Amino acid sequence: MAARKTISKAKSGTAKSRTAAKKTTKRASTKGNGKVHTIGSYLIQRLQDYGINEMFGIPGDFVLQFYGMLEESPIKVVGTTREDNAGYAADGYARVNGLGAVCVTYCVGGLSLCNSIAGAYAEKSPVVVISGAPGMEERETDPLLHHRVKDFHTQRDVFEKITVATALLDDPLTAFQEIDRCLEACVRYKRPVYLELPRDCVHKKAIIPHVPDDRQPTSDENALRESLAEAKKLIQASKKPVVIAGVEVHRFGLREEVLKFVEKNKIPMCATILGKSVVSESHPLYLGVYEGAMGRNEVQRYVEDSDCVILLGTFMTDINLGIYTAHLDPGKCIYATSEKLRISYHHFHDVVFSDFVQELGKQKMKVVVRKIPDNVRPQPVEFQVKPSQPITTKHLFESINQILGNHTVVVTDVGDCLFGAVDLMISTHTKFLSPAYYTSMGFAIPASIGAQVANPNLRPIVLVGDGAFQMTCLELSTALKLGYNPIVIVLNNKGYTTERFLQEGPFNDIPDWKYHNITDLIGGGWGFEVSTEGDLEKAIKAALANKDSLSVINVHLKPTDVSPALTRLADKMSKQL
Amino acid sequence: MAARKTISKAKSGTAKSRTAAKKTTKRASTKGNGKVHTIGSYLIQRLQDYGINEMFGIPGDFVLQFYGMLEESPIKVVGTTREDNAGYAADGYARVNGLGAVCVTYCVGGLSLCNSIAGAYAEKSPVVVISGAPGMEERETDPLLHHRVKDFHTQRDVFEKITVATALLDDPLTAFQEIDRCLEACVRYKRPVYLELPRDCVHKKAIIPHVPDDRQPTSDENALRESLAEAKKLIQASKKPVVIAGVEVHRFGLREEVLKFVEKNKIPMCATILGKSVVSESHPLYLGVYEGAMGRNEVQRYVEDSDCVILLGTFMTDINLGIYTAHLDPGKCIYATSEKLRISYHHFHDVVFSDFVQELGKQKMKVVVRKIPDNVRPQPVEFQVKPSQPITTKHLFESINQILGNHTVVVTDVGDCLFGAVDLMISTHTKFLSPAYYTSMGFAIPASIGAQVANPNLRPIVLVGDGAFQMTCLELSTALKLGYNPIVIVLNNKGYTTERFLQEGPFNDIPDWKYHNITDLIGGGWGFEVSTEGDLEKAIKAALANKDSLSVINVHLKPTDVSPALTRLADKMSKQL
Repeated sequence: MAARKTISKAKSGTAKSRTAAKKTTKRASTKGNGKVHTIGSYLIQRLQDYGINEMFGIPGDFVLQFYGMLEESPIKVVGTTREDNAGYAADGYARVNGLGAVCVTYCVGGLSLCNSIAGAYAEKSPVVVISGAPGMEERETDPLLHHRVKDFHTQRDVFEKITVATALLDDPLTAFQEIDRCLEACVRYKRPVYLELPRDCVHKKAIIPHVPDDRQPTSDENALRESLAEAKKLIQASKKPVVIAGVEVHRFGLREEVLKFVEKNKIPMCATILGKSVVSESHPLYLGVYEGAMGRNEVQRYVEDSDCVILLGTFMTDINLGIYTAHLDPGKCIYATSEKLRISYHHFHDVVFSDFVQELGKQKMKVVVRKIPDNVRPQPVEFQVKPSQPITTKHLFESINQILGNHTVVVTDVGDCLFGAVDLMISTHTKFLSPAYYTSMGFAIPASIGAQVANPNLRPIVLVGDGAFQMTCLELSTALKLGYNPIVIVLNNKGYTTERFLQEGPFNDIPDWKYHNITDLIGGGWGFEVSTEGDLEKAIKAALANKDSLSVINVHLKPTDVSPALTRLADKMSKQL
Repeated sequence: MAARKTISKAKSGTAKSRTAAKKTTKRASTKGNGKVHTIGSYLIQRLQDYGINEMFGIPGDFVLQFYGMLEESPIKVVGTTREDNAGYAADGYARVNGLGAVCVTYCVGGLSLCNSIAGAYAEKSPVVVISGAPGMEERETDPLLHHRVKDFHTQRDVFEKITVATALLDDPLTAFQEIDRCLEACVRYKRPVYLELPRDCVHKKAIIPHVPDDRQPTSDENALRESLAEAKKLIQASKKPVVIAGVEVHRFGLREEVLKFVEKNKIPMCATILGKSVVSESHPLYLGVYEGAMGRNEVQRYVEDSDCVILLGTFMTDINLGIYTAHLDPGKCIYATSEKLRISYHHFHDVVFSDFVQELGKQKMKVVVRKIPDNVRPQPVEFQVKPSQPITTKHLFESINQILGNHTVVVTDVGDCLFGAVDLMISTHTKFLSPAYYTSMGFAIPASIGAQVANPNLRPIVLVGDGAFQMTCLELSTALKLGYNPIVIVLNNKGYTTERFLQEGPFNDIPDWKYHNITDLIGGGWGFEVSTEGDLEKAIKAALANKDSLSVINVHLKPTDVSPALTRLADKMSKQL
């Protein structure tokens, strides 16, 4: 049982998935009790072991057998309007729950998931894709079965490119270990995996008894020891250390460890935009979001003035780096992620990210306490509502900031709603979801449903531009069906505003819908149309009071009005030219 | 110039694209006149040469340079709400125009196209996918630019799996011939191709003068001659010949040739569902749709009783074969497509499909004239509206049949609207579009927009189930923007009805929207909600009269009520068990 103990320790993630990991050990041991699994039932069992209680999808003939089996299982399938939205929902669920899953039919379903799964890959959200497929027997003469593209490998070939592991569950001799392999990869790398289940294999029984294999990677002890010694030396020698926490701190469930480390050593810290809300933003050591010129100037200066920047679980993307307006000297950085550990110019291999972060927190160090000037930390903004004043983007974000609390989760889409959200103050952890690297428009509404399915106590505040709303707004039907209460704020600036800065043209204009009238189409919810500060205040109050149902607030903004963050970036970029 | 003459002859397609082909010759010859093309301008020129006047898409930062260039060109870009809908629209446009194109940004745009482009591949619709991409210079240090998935090859790797040709237009030495190669493959194979245009390559100039290369395949003369002789022998020996015309007759612009062949030899003919409307369905030699038990019994018997079935451009898909209820003896078949020529058990290689069809029409033959019994040809149905009678699917299709004319195009989605449409009578050619092989839900609404962009004189009658409507209905916003007037008939049977026959479960139920209220959201058009035959009659009349705008008719049907075609299939299948 030693190996299994290691498992439940190593399997990280959020609190919820940790509990799940413990379950694994228990359930795995029941495997020997005589129950003979089929491929389908084993897959369902293992998903539960990993903490999946709900999944998302749309049925289709090649996956109906498995849907029938899911219907009998404890896993609830949430039907969505479109498959790509099911993908986003599973991604949102995974970000809150620690693992998500989506189940669709062959090609017309699976290939509709490509973009949302690619986004989960890019932003390290562990989503299990399960696709039904033609039966192995009916494939034998290579017939032109409907939904087929080139051949029966096409869909798996495509998913090879956008996941970390794929398997065709066509053989009861190999399917069980393939399920283990893929699920383990999903959790280890926090990236999507793909399982293809031919419809005539769902009920195929195990031929030999199978014991779940949950081996986890371990660090090279010497490399770990030396990397910690070097990190310690660099931090102790530093006069101005600072931590930048990234999204992997969420994904690997290391929030508490990071917090312990900074609190113990009194090191000020920032987050990246993708990692925003990794700690409560009201924490006294928290400075704000660091993302070059896109973040606040004071934060950028404070970070770039440091002689020891400790980057934990941070991707160095163009967005995180404020479109390369960030300036970090690698010689002064400790850079630890699940993929890489670099201390100054030394690279360390075979050091597991969570081992490094956990052990770093245990080190005894003498660290210089660096003062945080008053203007660096986020300042509460005082403002007065001028009822007849047209709403500006700046005012909108200030108003949104007022309503965030312990039970709200902010889910932003792409565009100025993302840039503007940089300055929002998220009071507790894991309360900010955004596609801040892959930046796929349409993410927010379906992802917010996934987040609320994972934790029904969270009330989503969804920030979405008009262009993105036009892409995926109909998924609000699912929120309505489930009795959920997201507050969807549409930044209606009549087009692709962030693109107007790059190249203006009529292609940036989009039709001005009555976004608040979506409630007439889907048959429920509250809609508000607002143009002035007074309207907005009333609408927000009404939406907050409307706890039983969703609200959509259509906020009219000028096409050229943008958030303070985007203004900062544009200013800086124009000065560089 | 001889080679070019062959080109304009060989480049088939609809009438419109043939004119375009002639243009090629002319324009190609102007290439030497001193104009130095850039990669972007050459691509635009070649698309026009091939008859593209409009394309579909959504801008994004990696494709804005090319959008700017398109804005200055004669090609009009039609913005859609989502990229996958742009793909469907381009597919619909290609089916009417002979070639279509879609232009999107990197990954978030391109990977959203996977499903619609896979459908175009499966159903042989020639669509050119153009994707913007990060510049080659900015890729140099392999940075994490937004929209990136695994590496900078990911998107092209994916499209390799779902297109016939791909190219990265990164080098002015090779880009021009790569554009030629891909466009030629698109037109030759009637399948999608993928062109990736890095943003810093749009304005790169040709280094050496480039002459467009339009070489086309030619038939092996001996193989062609022998295949024709053998076909002739079989047909002349036959007592009961029959033709089944498939979708490739549309795609390769061979309608007239096929018609000439059957008329000259008085051979009765059918169409497949995917090839439906290949000839006018009121033609005296036309029998109806052959698709095994899904078609009418009389047609099935008539065809399967034949001793010489001439299949022209027909895919042997499971749908075309009525889920394998069709029984055709290969020994009695002449089977010609762009991929294969088989006469009885003889396979012929290197015979170009259009050569075979054209030459077959020219053969002098003595063919037995086979009588067509009265009950085999489609019969006009007489019916009386009972105003207070609830609408049945059967009645709905009979009513739709009444409004089809020379200026309507029927575009069906997947589900019972497709099965039911089998029995519609399409009076002229190319007036029926459906995803009858790939069967991707959500095709019809965006594809109908593409069809109307290709030919604004066509009025789309769009048949769509409630499930499919929920997927892509918002694209009606684009029809509204363009001032188009589709009549959208929603078969609202409260769920995935065709699946209820396979496996019933709550997953087949979907929320019952107020589909007719979509007009409130998008801000225009007419909506109707109908439950009785009288309501329906009034709504159809009003919609027909409403020539300036779109109409949506929400037709309430019982969840278990299905079309006569689906009933026939279910009957036959249950007898086989």
